[in-house]
Amino acid sequence: MSKSAEEEHPQKAFGWAARDNSGILSPFRFSRRDNGEDDVTLKVLYCGVCHSDLHIARNDWGFTHYPVVPGHEIVGVATKVGKNVKKFKVGDRVGVGVMVGSCKTCECCQQDLENYCPRIIFTYNSHNPDGTRNYGGYSDMIVVDQRYVLRFPDNMPLDAGAPLLCAGITVYSPMKYYGMTEAGKHLGVAGLGGLGHVAVKIGKAFGLKVTVISSSPSKESEAINRLGADSFLVSSDPAKMKSAIGTMDYIIDTVSAVHPLLPLLSLLKVNGKLVTVGLPNKPLELPIFPLILGRKLVGGSDSGGMKETQEMLDFCAKHNIAADIELIRMDDINTAMERLTKSDVRYRFVIDVANSL
Amino acid sequence: MSKSAEEEHPQKAFGWAARDNSGILSPFRFSRRDNGEDDVTLKVLYCGVCHSDLHIARNDWGFTHYPVVPGHEIVGVATKVGKNVKKFKVGDRVGVGVMVGSCKTCECCQQDLENYCPRIIFTYNSHNPDGTRNYGGYSDMIVVDQRYVLRFPDNMPLDAGAPLLCAGITVYSPMKYYGMTEAGKHLGVAGLGGLGHVAVKIGKAFGLKVTVISSSPSKESEAINRLGADSFLVSSDPAKMKSAIGTMDYIIDTVSAVHPLLPLLSLLKVNGKLVTVGLPNKPLELPIFPLILGRKLVGGSDSGGMKETQEMLDFCAKHNIAADIELIRMDDINTAMERLTKSDVRYRFVIDVANSL
Repeated sequence: MSKSAEEEHPQKAFGWAARDNSGILSPFRFSRRDNGEDDVTLKVLYCGVCHSDLHIARNDWGFTHYPVVPGHEIVGVATKVGKNVKKFKVGDRVGVGVMVGSCKTCECCQQDLENYCPRIIFTYNSHNPDGTRNYGGYSDMIVVDQRYVLRFPDNMPLDAGAPLLCAGITVYSPMKYYGMTEAGKHLGVAGLGGLGHVAVKIGKAFGLKVTVISSSPSKESEAINRLGADSFLVSSDPAKMKSAIGTMDYIIDTVSAVHPLLPLLSLLKVNGKLVTVGLPNKPLELPIFPLILGRKLVGGSDSGGMKETQEMLDFCAKHNIAADIELIRMDDINTAMERLTKSDVRYRFVIDVANSL
Repeated sequence: MSKSAEEEHPQKAFGWAARDNSGILSPFRFSRRDNGEDDVTLKVLYCGVCHSDLHIARNDWGFTHYPVVPGHEIVGVATKVGKNVKKFKVGDRVGVGVMVGSCKTCECCQQDLENYCPRIIFTYNSHNPDGTRNYGGYSDMIVVDQRYVLRFPDNMPLDAGAPLLCAGITVYSPMKYYGMTEAGKHLGVAGLGGLGHVAVKIGKAFGLKVTVISSSPSKESEAINRLGADSFLVSSDPAKMKSAIGTMDYIIDTVSAVHPLLPLLSLLKVNGKLVTVGLPNKPLELPIFPLILGRKLVGGSDSGGMKETQEMLDFCAKHNIAADIELIRMDDINTAMERLTKSDVRYRFVIDVANSL
């Protein structure tokens, strides 16, 4: 008979878990493996609240195993390092993102694309190699293979930097892969939430002209004055949308609700690229004429490999980029999740784990 | 009052036109402009029958102006050249594809992408700069600005080469643009019609492994033995489709009927590219998870610029590539159109214009 979550590993751990598709989180005792030779143990200080945490907690995508401890924007301090670990020492500021393991041998892993490894181990709602289930960063500590641990740059704030580990790399990686970084080009950012607001900042750091495309007119002033966007398009305003037809080189579409692609494709110039990083749970309608007549593409991208994630952190540190956050206590999480369903957050909740768990 | 089609220009012309959305073609007298200083006049010898000809003749896309003379895979001999024409002389073997004009000054035109010029003049069902309507290659002669005239390589057959002017460039251009030409990679060709069968040949010439994906099991032997494909997948065979999941680097999707993209996307490896060149008249369903989880893209492409079309003709001549055709007489065209609606052609009808009009 398999052991309970609390007994299956030697190290005691404590976090908050969802028990069913209500998604309501509550305190949860479990355990973590001993720190192995290649492992780093983190005392968790902060953990960002990603929209995926909400989807998984509520089983929106249909593959949640309960109990689930969410959290994959984890920042902390190294408290143990295994004897093979050379890159990190006890006391280092470190981070863990969306994955904690992969096969290390496949073509993807060999090309530093662990995020596309078919045997990827996601940070939570996944399985460890020994068959036990794993748990995320809404918890006091975590043990992670060094390959999947990031160095947190010295000048990056631990709380506001945490969301970069998912939101940051999720927009940075496609911008690099799809060639959306040419200074002076025009980037549209569809959706101004956790991902979108970081995309604005990274886009500006690449020297792009950035236009936010949002259904919320109330975000215009903030988008421009606080986040540094060059302009703002209300997606529900037909006249403004029409006047922007054919003006953009790239669009990052962060909207995770089902939405029409045609208006976004229309904003693109010839050879324009629309990259979608939100995860609607139903297919979107893809009109083929605009794709063909303008040689446009719709591409996907899922976070990034470990090497690129480190590169992204260093890039953001260099450009003083972090997320705009609301710091919350662990026991605020259910209220925060409710607000997240209404996109009522500017722009990412981060849990002050060490001070409130 | 505007003049009739027969009287508006000085040169008499004769072809076959559709008069209404029955799409039935019948003899039609009209006229062409005098050969200008930059013009080449062609005596039309052969004209391919493209699926678009059928769509336009029947107003499937809703923008047909009747009467319409289809035909944009035109091969002939130059009978007049204007005084500014240096590239061609009377007697040359020449071709005209999907366009006969563009603005020549926009960014697209300056980058040899006249096919994406917002002021492109398609070869038929479009308007000349003087406001008159223009007519395609199901006719005895045509007058075209030299920029839009191709040189037909010496060793290329005039009849079987004609379809390259649309079908050939439509598959060649995206293979180049989207980087689908790396020898040894695996190309899927979805749909084995006019475009698909040329894609197989061009793919093989680039050194690719080519798999045909078709709903017609009867085409397997031909695809492999006659066209040179390496393998054949029946799209309606779930076991075979499943066994091919994640095996392809690229897919060219030539299917113009509404069809599901998910099975095709599943065939792609990580970083796989699906380029659609068929024109379904309704949006397709685009599943987002496979796009994101495999960093895949769906791109469009519409024929090619004049420079690239010449490059494609020369490439095909070098590799002895031409279309597999059924040569028909002009008065067979309505039967041919009927057969085309059922994909009953291997693989392109070409009208023997000069001998049968």
